Amino acid sequence: MSQYRIEHDFLGEKEIPNNAYYGVQTLRAVENFNITGITNANEPLFIQAFGFVKKAAAMANRDCGVLDPKIADAIIFACDELIAGKYQDQFVTDLIQGGAGTSINMNVNEVIANIGLEHMGYNKGDYDHLHPNNHVNCSQSTNDAYPTAFRIALYRKIDEYIADIEALQAAFAAKGEEFDDVLKMGRTQLQDAVPMTLGQEFHGFATTIGEDVRRLQEARNLITECNMGATAIGTRINAPEGYPELCTQYLAEISGLPITLAEDLIEATSDTGAYVQISGTLKRSVIKISKICNDLRLLSSGPRTGFNEINLPRMQAGSSIMPGKVNPVIPEVVNQTAYYVIGTDLTITLAAEAGQLQLNVMEPVIAFSLFTSLKYMGNAINTLTEKCVKGITANVEVCRNMVLNSIGIVTALNPILGYEICAAIAKEALATGKSIHDIAVTERQLITQEKWDEIYCIENLIHPKFINQ
Amino acid sequence: MSQYRIEHDFLGEKEIPNNAYYGVQTLRAVENFNITGITNANEPLFIQAFGFVKKAAAMANRDCGVLDPKIADAIIFACDELIAGKYQDQFVTDLIQGGAGTSINMNVNEVIANIGLEHMGYNKGDYDHLHPNNHVNCSQSTNDAYPTAFRIALYRKIDEYIADIEALQAAFAAKGEEFDDVLKMGRTQLQDAVPMTLGQEFHGFATTIGEDVRRLQEARNLITECNMGATAIGTRINAPEGYPELCTQYLAEISGLPITLAEDLIEATSDTGAYVQISGTLKRSVIKISKICNDLRLLSSGPRTGFNEINLPRMQAGSSIMPGKVNPVIPEVVNQTAYYVIGTDLTITLAAEAGQLQLNVMEPVIAFSLFTSLKYMGNAINTLTEKCVKGITANVEVCRNMVLNSIGIVTALNPILGYEICAAIAKEALATGKSIHDIAVTERQLITQEKWDEIYCIENLIHPKFINQ
Amino acid sequence: MSQYRIEHDFLGEKEIPNNAYYGVQTLRAVENFNITGITNANEPLFIQAFGFVKKAAAMANRDCGVLDPKIADAIIFACDELIAGKYQDQFVTDLIQGGAGTSINMNVNEVIANIGLEHMGYNKGDYDHLHPNNHVNCSQSTNDAYPTAFRIALYRKIDEYIADIEALQAAFAAKGEEFDDVLKMGRTQLQDAVPMTLGQEFHGFATTIGEDVRRLQEARNLITECNMGATAIGTRINAPEGYPELCTQYLAEISGLPITLAEDLIEATSDTGAYVQISGTLKRSVIKISKICNDLRLLSSGPRTGFNEINLPRMQAGSSIMPGKVNPVIPEVVNQTAYYVIGTDLTITLAAEAGQLQLNVMEPVIAFSLFTSLKYMGNAINTLTEKCVKGITANVEVCRNMVLNSIGIVTALNPILGYEICAAIAKEALATGKSIHDIAVTERQLITQEKWDEIYCIENLIHPKFINQ
Amino acid sequence: MSQYRIEHDFLGEKEIPNNAYYGVQTLRAVENFNITGITNANEPLFIQAFGFVKKAAAMANRDCGVLDPKIADAIIFACDELIAGKYQDQFVTDLIQGGAGTSINMNVNEVIANIGLEHMGYNKGDYDHLHPNNHVNCSQSTNDAYPTAFRIALYRKIDEYIADIEALQAAFAAKGEEFDDVLKMGRTQLQDAVPMTLGQEFHGFATTIGEDVRRLQEARNLITECNMGATAIGTRINAPEGYPELCTQYLAEISGLPITLAEDLIEATSDTGAYVQISGTLKRSVIKISKICNDLRLLSSGPRTGFNEINLPRMQAGSSIMPGKVNPVIPEVVNQTAYYVIGTDLTITLAAEAGQLQLNVMEPVIAFSLFTSLKYMGNAINTLTEKCVKGITANVEVCRNMVLNSIGIVTALNPILGYEICAAIAKEALATGKSIHDIAVTERQLITQEKWDEIYCIENLIHPKFINQ
Repeated sequence: MSQYRIEHDFLGEKEIPNNAYYGVQTLRAVENFNITGITNANEPLFIQAFGFVKKAAAMANRDCGVLDPKIADAIIFACDELIAGKYQDQFVTDLIQGGAGTSINMNVNEVIANIGLEHMGYNKGDYDHLHPNNHVNCSQSTNDAYPTAFRIALYRKIDEYIADIEALQAAFAAKGEEFDDVLKMGRTQLQDAVPMTLGQEFHGFATTIGEDVRRLQEARNLITECNMGATAIGTRINAPEGYPELCTQYLAEISGLPITLAEDLIEATSDTGAYVQISGTLKRSVIKISKICNDLRLLSSGPRTGFNEINLPRMQAGSSIMPGKVNPVIPEVVNQTAYYVIGTDLTITLAAEAGQLQLNVMEPVIAFSLFTSLKYMGNAINTLTEKCVKGITANVEVCRNMVLNSIGIVTALNPILGYEICAAIAKEALATGKSIHDIAVTERQLITQEKWDEIYCIENLIHPKFINQ
Repeated sequence: MSQYRIEHDFLGEKEIPNNAYYGVQTLRAVENFNITGITNANEPLFIQAFGFVKKAAAMANRDCGVLDPKIADAIIFACDELIAGKYQDQFVTDLIQGGAGTSINMNVNEVIANIGLEHMGYNKGDYDHLHPNNHVNCSQSTNDAYPTAFRIALYRKIDEYIADIEALQAAFAAKGEEFDDVLKMGRTQLQDAVPMTLGQEFHGFATTIGEDVRRLQEARNLITECNMGATAIGTRINAPEGYPELCTQYLAEISGLPITLAEDLIEATSDTGAYVQISGTLKRSVIKISKICNDLRLLSSGPRTGFNEINLPRMQAGSSIMPGKVNPVIPEVVNQTAYYVIGTDLTITLAAEAGQLQLNVMEPVIAFSLFTSLKYMGNAINTLTEKCVKGITANVEVCRNMVLNSIGIVTALNPILGYEICAAIAKEALATGKSIHDIAVTERQLITQEKWDEIYCIENLIHPKFINQ
Repeated sequence: MSQYRIEHDFLGEKEIPNNAYYGVQTLRAVENFNITGITNANEPLFIQAFGFVKKAAAMANRDCGVLDPKIADAIIFACDELIAGKYQDQFVTDLIQGGAGTSINMNVNEVIANIGLEHMGYNKGDYDHLHPNNHVNCSQSTNDAYPTAFRIALYRKIDEYIADIEALQAAFAAKGEEFDDVLKMGRTQLQDAVPMTLGQEFHGFATTIGEDVRRLQEARNLITECNMGATAIGTRINAPEGYPELCTQYLAEISGLPITLAEDLIEATSDTGAYVQISGTLKRSVIKISKICNDLRLLSSGPRTGFNEINLPRMQAGSSIMPGKVNPVIPEVVNQTAYYVIGTDLTITLAAEAGQLQLNVMEPVIAFSLFTSLKYMGNAINTLTEKCVKGITANVEVCRNMVLNSIGIVTALNPILGYEICAAIAKEALATGKSIHDIAVTERQLITQEKWDEIYCIENLIHPKFINQ
Repeated sequence: MSQYRIEHDFLGEKEIPNNAYYGVQTLRAVENFNITGITNANEPLFIQAFGFVKKAAAMANRDCGVLDPKIADAIIFACDELIAGKYQDQFVTDLIQGGAGTSINMNVNEVIANIGLEHMGYNKGDYDHLHPNNHVNCSQSTNDAYPTAFRIALYRKIDEYIADIEALQAAFAAKGEEFDDVLKMGRTQLQDAVPMTLGQEFHGFATTIGEDVRRLQEARNLITECNMGATAIGTRINAPEGYPELCTQYLAEISGLPITLAEDLIEATSDTGAYVQISGTLKRSVIKISKICNDLRLLSSGPRTGFNEINLPRMQAGSSIMPGKVNPVIPEVVNQTAYYVIGTDLTITLAAEAGQLQLNVMEPVIAFSLFTSLKYMGNAINTLTEKCVKGITANVEVCRNMVLNSIGIVTALNPILGYEICAAIAKEALATGKSIHDIAVTERQLITQEKWDEIYCIENLIHPKFINQ
C-alpha cells in the first residue's frame, strides 16, 4: 500500500502522507508559511476551542436540518477527540500565517473530517462521505469560526494570567503585613522625602496589582461576544435561519463560557477592538509590574554602595568574575519579559490598524502576540512570586537609621515653624552635615526636646498625627 | 517706583516684574524649562481645575482650623478668579517640565497668593500675610494637588472627546440609513467576497465607534479617584485629621464631578495606571477611526482606475500639477493625527514605566501627551464628521454592476451545488472572463433560470435567505 | 554508579545528571528562568560564536602566561567541538534570562570545562584541573564575553538577512525588466494620477530595497568593535597586560570577521547603541517591504471589483466558504511578520533605555529580539521572493485600458492649455463620464487630432517628452 | 475699495482678504485643516527652503525656455523675500495637513505669485500675469517641491541638533578630565562591582554621545538626494528636457548644500526611508541621553539615603511641602522630552508604512514629528549642558569610602586566590559585616599586608595592573 494518498483542491492535486489526518489545504499552508517554526500544536487551548466551535456548529446545523445526523455525529465524535487533547500533532500550520486564519481553520476541518471518516468506517480522504468544507465547515466561514475559537482560547488564557497576578498580589500583601513596623525613608524623584513603612510600600504594590485584576476581567468580557453565523462578511450568507443563535447557545454550553451573539455581525467580523483593549490592559499590568521590579532592584541595591533596604532571595552566582556577587536576576528577567509584551502591544496596534473593509486579515499575528505575551508574562510573574517576592527580607536597622539621619524629616516641623524656616534648617543640615535635631533643638532651640520626641517617636513617624504647635 | 520687586526662596533672591502675579519659584521654572514653548496657559481647563483644587483645600483647611478664615476667604476669592478664566497669562511654565509638576503647582500657589494679597489690600509679594506654601498649599503637596487638578481637567477633555465621537457615530449611522438599499460587493483581503449593502458597511462604522463611547467612559471613571490629603507620599504627613475626606467632598461639590478619595493613598500617589488605561482606550478609538479612514479612501479611490463606490465631498484642488484632481484630504489628515496619538501612547507608556518608588516624576509629559492628543484628535474627528462623512454620496450604479459582474456571487450556490463544483465554476469564470450565470445556467445547466432569479434578485442579495435546493 | 554528581557554588550544592556537560550554575539558571521555553540551543551561531570567544581568550591567556598551556589546549579542543556544532543540546538556558547573560556564559564555561576535563582524562566536575571560572573564563567577565559572542552571531545573521533582501531586490528588478512595456496608470493618494509603466513601479521596488543593503552593512559594521579584556566594567581588572589586544587579534583570525578593540572600554561595556542602530535599520527595511506588500495586495485586488493590474501566484484556496477565492496570502504573512519586527524594535528601545550605570542588564532580551526578528523576517522575505514575486504576471490589457479611460491624462495638456482650462476639462469629464479626447479634441477643438496623437501615443506615455505647443 | 478680492479655483469662488498674499487654495486649506493650531509660520527654515526650491525652479525653467524671463525675475524676487525671512505670517496652513503637502506648496506658490505681481506692478490676484500653478509651480508638482523643501530644512535642523550634542559631549568630556582622580565604586545590575573613577564614567558619557555625531551625519547625508523634476510621480511629465539636472544644480548653489538628483525618480517620489533612518538615529541618541540622565539621577540620589556620589546644580526648590528638598529637575525634563521623541519615532514608523503606490501622503506628519522632536530635544540638550552638566560636583570622600567599605574589591584577589576562595570571603563579609581586609589579611592571612597595599593603593584601584601572586 502506498505511503501517500492523493487529495485535490481547485488548484490541483497533492500527495498526502497516509497517516496524516490533515489534507491538501493544510499541506499547502505548511509549504507556504515557514516563518516562526512555532505551529498551532503549541497552543492546545486554541485547538480545543476549535473543537468547541465545530461541535456547536455541527449540532446547530443538524438541528436546522442542513446536516445529516449521521454526519453530524461523526463530526461531534471528532470534535470530542480534539477537546480531549488528542491529535495535537496534526496541527502543523505556522502560528503566523497569511489568509486570515483559513489555513488553521481548514487544518481543523480536514483533521475532523478524517477522524470522522475513520469513525464512520471510511478511509481518510473519502470526502464524499464527510467533506471538510461542505460538512465540517457547514454554515461557517473562517471569518466567524477562527475569531470565535481564538476568543475562547484567549478567554481562558486571560483567566490563567489573572490567577497569576492574584498570586503576586497576595505575596505582596503578605509582605506588606510582615513589614508593617519597618520604618523607612520614602523617596520621591530619588531624593529623600518623608518617612513611611516598608509595609506601606509593599501594600501599595499589592493594591496597584489588584486593580489590574478588575481591568483585565472587564477587557476579557469583551470577547464573550462571538460572530458565529456571520459567515463570510457578516451577512449570514449560506447560514440557515436560526443557526447563528442556536450555534451560539450550544457553544456557550459546551465551552462553559458566557458567550453571546454580536448584534452587528458586519461590524463584529472585521473588528479587532477587543484585542486592542486586551493588549492595552495587559500592557498596563506589565508596566506596573516592571515599575515594581525597578523598585525592588533599587531597594535591594548594594550591598554596601546602594540603598540596601531589602534583600532579595539569592538565586544564583551573579558574576563569572566577581566572587560573591549576587544579582537581582528575577526582577531583571521580569523587566525584560515586560519589554517583550510592550513590543507586542505595538505589533497588535499595527495589525489592528491594517484591517481593510470587511475583514482584518492580520488576526493571526494578533493571536500569536497575545498567546506568547500571556504565556511569557504569566511565567515571569509566577517566577517573581515564587522565587523572589515570597523570600524578600528587610534590613530593619538600615532602614531606620536612614530615617533618623535624614534631612527630609524636617517636613514634620512645617506646621509649627513654617516652610521658610524649615527650608533654612534643611539647607544648613545639607551644608554642614549636621542633623535636623542638632539644628532645631540644640542650636536654634526652635522647639523643645519634648515636642521633638512627640513628633519623632517611631509611632508618630509611622502613623503621623497632625501636630502644629 | 521700581518695575521689579524682590522675592526670595531658599536658593536666593530674584527680581520679579511688578505686574507679575507669579513669583520667584515660577520664574526659576521659566528659566529652567524651555522645551516646547507651549505653556500651561494653553490649557485653561487645567488652570480652572487647579482653581477647584485650591479652593476645596482652603475650605477644608479652614474647617479643620488650620487656616485663618480671612486668609481662606482671600484664597477662595483668588480661586474663583481662576475658575472664571482670568489671569490665564500668568501661567507661564512649559507644559513639559521637570520636578513632577512642582513648578505649575507653585505657579498656581504664587498667582493665587498675589491675587489674594491684593484682594486683602496688601502688595504682591507680601507673603507674610498670605504665603504660597504655608497658606495656599496648606495641607497639600504637589504630589496630591497636581495629579488631582490634572485628573479633573482630563475628565472634562475626555467628555468633550466622547461628544466628538458620538457626533461621528451619528453621522455614520445616518449614512447607514441613507445607503440602506445600495447593493455592493463586500471584500475580504481586498478580494471580491460576497454582496452586502453600503448601508451595512456604514452602519458597521457607526457600531464600532459607538462601542468606544462606553470604553472611554469606563476609562474616564478611573480618574474620579483623587489623593487629596496624601501630601508628599501618601502618609498624610502635615494634613490635619479629617482633611482628606473633607477636601475631597468640597472638591466634588465645586467641580460637579463624582470625585472620591483613594483607599490606598501610598499607591494612589505613585500610580499612573489610569492614564495608561485612558491612553490605551484612546488609542483603540483612533485605531478604529484610522481604519475607517483607510476604508473611505479605498472606497472612493478612482475616479476611473479605483473602486469608485463612494464620493467624498470635494474640499480643495488636489494637485499643483494635475488639473481636476481631488484628493481625500480629510481622511488623510485624520490618519496622520491618529499616528500622532498612537505615538503619544508610547510616550505615556515610557513615562509610566519610568516611575520610581513613591512618585512618578514623569507625569507632566503624560499630561502634555493626553492634552494634545485629545485636542488634536477631537479636532480631526470634528473635521471628519462635518467636512467629509456628512457629505458622502454613493455611486449606486457602479456598486450594483460590480456585484453582478463578480465571481464571488457563486458562493450563494454552495448549499445547492457544493463547494467543489462552485470552485470549478469560479475557476472557469476567472480564466475565461465569463459570468457565473453564463456558466452555471446557460452552459452547464446546473440550476434553472427560475432558481437563479430567486437567489440573485436584489432583495435576496441584500438580505440573503438560506436557499439550498 | 550514581546517575548524579554533586557540584557546588557559593550558594550550596546541587545534583547534576552525570551525562550533563553543564554544571551547577547552569542548573540554577534553568530553574530560575522559565519564560519562553526557547533555549540557547536554538541559536547555533551564538554557541559557535562563544566557541570563538573562549578559544581566542584561551590562546591569549596562554600567550600572556596566565594559563598553563596544557589547560589552554584542553579549552581550545572543547571550543573547537562547539565551533563544529557539537554539544548543542547542552545549552539549556532560556534565551530571555536575568543576570545580563551570566547564565549562558557560565553554561558555556561549564560545558567547555567538562569537555576539556574528559579530553584530559578526568571526570566531569573535577574542576580542580580545569575550572569554569578560573580557567575557561580567565581574564574575562560575562560583560565582555557575552556581548562579544552576541555580536559575532549577530554579524552573521545580518549577513544572511542582507543576502535575503538582495535576492528580493533581484526578483523585483527582473520583473521591472519584464514589465518594461506595460503601460499603466500611476496613482497618488489612491486617486488617478498620470501614466507610467509597471516596469517602473517594480524597478522602484528594487531600488528602494537595494538602498537598505548599504544601510544594513553600515549598521552591521558597528558591531565589529568588541570589548574583550574590559572584564567586569571596562577597567581591565584581572586582565593581564596585552591580553585585550591579543585576544581581539586571535578572535578576528578565528572568526574571520574584521573585529577590533573598542577605544573606550568603559563606554563599550554598557553601550547598546549599536543594537538600537541595527534594529532601527532593520525596521526601516521591513517598513519598506510591508509598504510594498500593501501595494502588491492593492494592485492585485479584484479580480472583478478591484484594481486587477497584476496577478500574484495562486498559492492556496482562499476561503473555507467562498469557492474559487484566492487571496494574497504571501504578502499578508509578510505584513504580519513586519509588524512583529516593528514590535521588537520597541522592545529593544525599552531595553536599551533601561541600562544603568556600568552595564545594560537587559541585553538578553535584545539578543532574543534581534535573533527572532532576523530569522522570522528572513523567512518571510524568502517566501515573498520565491512564492510570490517571481511568479507575478501582468494584466496588460486591463492596465492599458485604465490609462486610456482616465481623466488624469489631461495633465499632459498643461503645458499647452494651462492648468485652469485643463481643470475645466477634467471637471466636465468627471461630471459627464466623457473622455478627455471627446472634450478636448472633438467638442472644444482645443488641440488637433495630430497633436493628440503625438502626445498620447504609447511611446510618449511611457517616456514622456516635453511638448508645449 | 472692498476689503476682499474674489479668487476662484475649479471648485468655485472665495473671498480673500485684500491684504493677504495667499489665495483661494490656501484659504480652503485653512478651513479644512484645523488640527494642531501650529502653522507652517512656526518653521521659518521650511519657508526659507521653499524659497530656495522655487527660485531654483524659476531659474531652470527660464534657462529651458519655458518661463518668460520677466516672469522668472518676478518669481526670483519674491523667493528672495521669503529667503530673507519676510512674509512669514502668510504661511497659515496647519503643519499636520491632508493632501501630501499640496496646501503648503500652493500657499507658497500663491504668496510668491502675489509678491511677484505687486513687484511687476499688478494687483494681487491678477494671476494672468503670474500664475501660482502655471508659473511659480512650473515643471513642478507638490510631490517633488514639498519633499525637497522639507529635506533642506531638515538638513539644517539636524546640523543644529548635532551642534547641540557636540556641546553636551564637550561638557561631559570636561567633567571627565575634572573627575579623573575621583575613585568610586562601579556598579553593575545596581550591585557593587569593582572600582573605577568618576572621570572614566563621565568620559564614557562623552564617548557614547560622540558616536552619535557620526551616525547623525550619515543619516543626514541621505537627504541630500532630491527628486526635483520628478513632477507628479517620477516620470518627469511636463518637465522640459534638462530641467531636473539644471534645477538641482541651481538648488545646490542657492542652498549651499551638496544636493544631488536621485537616480530612480519613481522610487524617490514615494520613498520615506531616509526619514525613518533619521528618526531611528535620532531615537538612538535620545535613548542614550535618557540613560545618562537616569544615571545622573541615580548618582545624585540622596542626599542622605541615596548614592550621593555627585551633586547636580540646585536649580529650584523641589517641593511645595518638603522644605530644602531639591530635585534633579533638569535630567527629569530631559527624560520626558526623550519619551516624546521616542513616541514620534513610532508616529513616523506608522506614517512611513502607510505610503501607498506612487506617493506617501503621510509626509506632513513626518515633517511635524521631526521638526518638533529636533526642536524640543535640542532645547532639552542645551538645558542639560548649561544648567546641569557644567555645574556637577563630586562628593570625593563619599565616593572613596564606598570603595574601601565594599565587598566587590575582593575581585582583585581572584588571580591570586581563585574564584572559589574569594567567593567564600565575600560571603563571610556579607554575612558578618566585616571588611574584606579583615577576613583576607587579618583573620585568614591569605595574603600579606604588603601585597594588600600593592593591590589596594589608590593608584592601582584607578589603573589596575595585573597582579597574580
